[in-house]
Amino acid sequence: MIPTSTVPDVLVRTRQAVAPALADALDRLSEDVRRLVTYHLGWTDLDGRPALDGEGKGIRPALAILSAEAARAESQVGVPGAVAVELIHNFSLVHDDVIDGDLTRRHRPTVWAVAGIGHAIVVGDALVTLAHQVLLDGPSAVSAGRCLADATAAMIAGQADDIAFETRRDVSLVQCTAMTVNKTGALLGCAASIGAVLAGATPATVRGLRDYGTNLGMAFQAVDDLLGIWGGPERTGKPAGNDLRQRKKTLPIVAALCAGNGEAHELHDLLGGGLLDDQQVARATSLVEACGARTWTANRARSHLGTALQALEGVRMSPMTRRELTELAAYVVERES
Amino acid sequence: MIPTSTVPDVLVRTRQAVAPALADALDRLSEDVRRLVTYHLGWTDLDGRPALDGEGKGIRPALAILSAEAARAESQVGVPGAVAVELIHNFSLVHDDVIDGDLTRRHRPTVWAVAGIGHAIVVGDALVTLAHQVLLDGPSAVSAGRCLADATAAMIAGQADDIAFETRRDVSLVQCTAMTVNKTGALLGCAASIGAVLAGATPATVRGLRDYGTNLGMAFQAVDDLLGIWGGPERTGKPAGNDLRQRKKTLPIVAALCAGNGEAHELHDLLGGGLLDDQQVARATSLVEACGARTWTANRARSHLGTALQALEGVRMSPMTRRELTELAAYVVERES
Repeated sequence: MIPTSTVPDVLVRTRQAVAPALADALDRLSEDVRRLVTYHLGWTDLDGRPALDGEGKGIRPALAILSAEAARAESQVGVPGAVAVELIHNFSLVHDDVIDGDLTRRHRPTVWAVAGIGHAIVVGDALVTLAHQVLLDGPSAVSAGRCLADATAAMIAGQADDIAFETRRDVSLVQCTAMTVNKTGALLGCAASIGAVLAGATPATVRGLRDYGTNLGMAFQAVDDLLGIWGGPERTGKPAGNDLRQRKKTLPIVAALCAGNGEAHELHDLLGGGLLDDQQVARATSLVEACGARTWTANRARSHLGTALQALEGVRMSPMTRRELTELAAYVVERES
Repeated sequence: MIPTSTVPDVLVRTRQAVAPALADALDRLSEDVRRLVTYHLGWTDLDGRPALDGEGKGIRPALAILSAEAARAESQVGVPGAVAVELIHNFSLVHDDVIDGDLTRRHRPTVWAVAGIGHAIVVGDALVTLAHQVLLDGPSAVSAGRCLADATAAMIAGQADDIAFETRRDVSLVQCTAMTVNKTGALLGCAASIGAVLAGATPATVRGLRDYGTNLGMAFQAVDDLLGIWGGPERTGKPAGNDLRQRKKTLPIVAALCAGNGEAHELHDLLGGGLLDDQQVARATSLVEACGARTWTANRARSHLGTALQALEGVRMSPMTRRELTELAAYVVERES
């Protein structure tokens, strides 16, 4: 893979536009919940003291701002959408960490690891509700709310499949792809179009931007799935080999299982038992590569990136916005962590 | 307490109006999630085969329908609100069972007990999102959506306090009451007014109905707290003494702790350690009663019921709707399970 790019300027610029509104929204939470949220976001430590540690990249809010700009509106128009998608994204992270039993995220202990499962469930619940409150207080509340709620519903359906697939041995590539479209594509598609929805853009503009975001999400997930097998903890903040250990049915794993060769059969048998130990994880990792699934998945990420950029071509926007959306797409797919 | 009343006709009538719309909404869920939801609702067994077993009473959707009728609209106007509040209520039940570690609800194993914590989290997440989708598809989406989202946010804040209070020894009656208003009052206040919101009623009408619902919720919670100590599993579907065992800070427990006598001090010491064993639960139960907290809480339920009925007096509505809202209130407070 290409080395990590420098953080694009657009992420710095859009973070400055979104952070104050996000902080205002968080003020509506009860104190205990807010402290855990600012901890999760990397804004504070557990006692609420300021810290800037392990913040997310802010790709979704950046997309929301850019989608307003793509519809030739002021970036401010996209802010409620940016805040809402960032809240939904973080709701899903907090709940996913419970579901997956992940102890660390961005090199820090996860919310459930520090505060217990009960608090983590409540924190996620509070974030999803806050996202709806933010949109309901703004203009275009219904269309933006639908954009968000439909994407959230799809994301949750994808997450349900993701869990169910762990104990299934017969997941096809089509099913795996459908799960990924839902789990990751839907919210990025929403992020990349909600600003345009708020700006009252034409359906064609909204659709083009959404297709860009959905494909970007698919590319993002393909890269994430590669990191879930070959990314070390120093890059992902998670233990290496986590996905194979948990028998997740990610794209490269399913692609390998579908290869139909001897390695695929051995992998099938390995993943058919209980959780894997370190030696089994190492063997499974080399089997996935031997099936050609690492190359296949990397190609697939590139192909979705191409489709994403193609979707942008149909949308009229300023050259600067187009350049920033293109840069952001490259950044997402080239990232190593 | 007065013996369980017969189920009021209004609950039968409103269930018939709401059930088809609720079933339609559930069709939007992915298959695995829907099967767990219909199991949770008591509509099916775990394999999706029809069953009618342990259904909820449907008080919230009934209130939503009645609130549309109170605003002199057709009951149909209240249906999206009824579906949405029922979805939010059940989202909270599914997540609360995980948080509280409860293995049974309405005499059947809880969702997390049969499907694991991950699935239960996802099922709750799917229900809250579906509630917003239902409202966003209907008329008055913004005002009804705000009514629902604000109530949900309050409910979640109350739930966060409820968890935090378990390990605190200094919870005051004021804090406990505020927690209850949020945890139970807010969603019943929403249920009792969302139909009127959908009908475009005046702010005074909406406020009167909401005050009725909020106070009804407070009365409901007081009765629930009594059942949490003195209600046996045959009445509640939960193990007896659950609340004391978990050191929950419910109204009667906090009232007892604040009594300032010797029994209160002994109770304080008992609840200051870890989880209680059966003998300690029995001792704590008699201490709460000796502090006069059982009588105090029962009086408090009656007093909130009075306030609820008073709030109704300020709202003009048909005599029949008024009678049904009054009956429903009595039913809620007189229930023994």
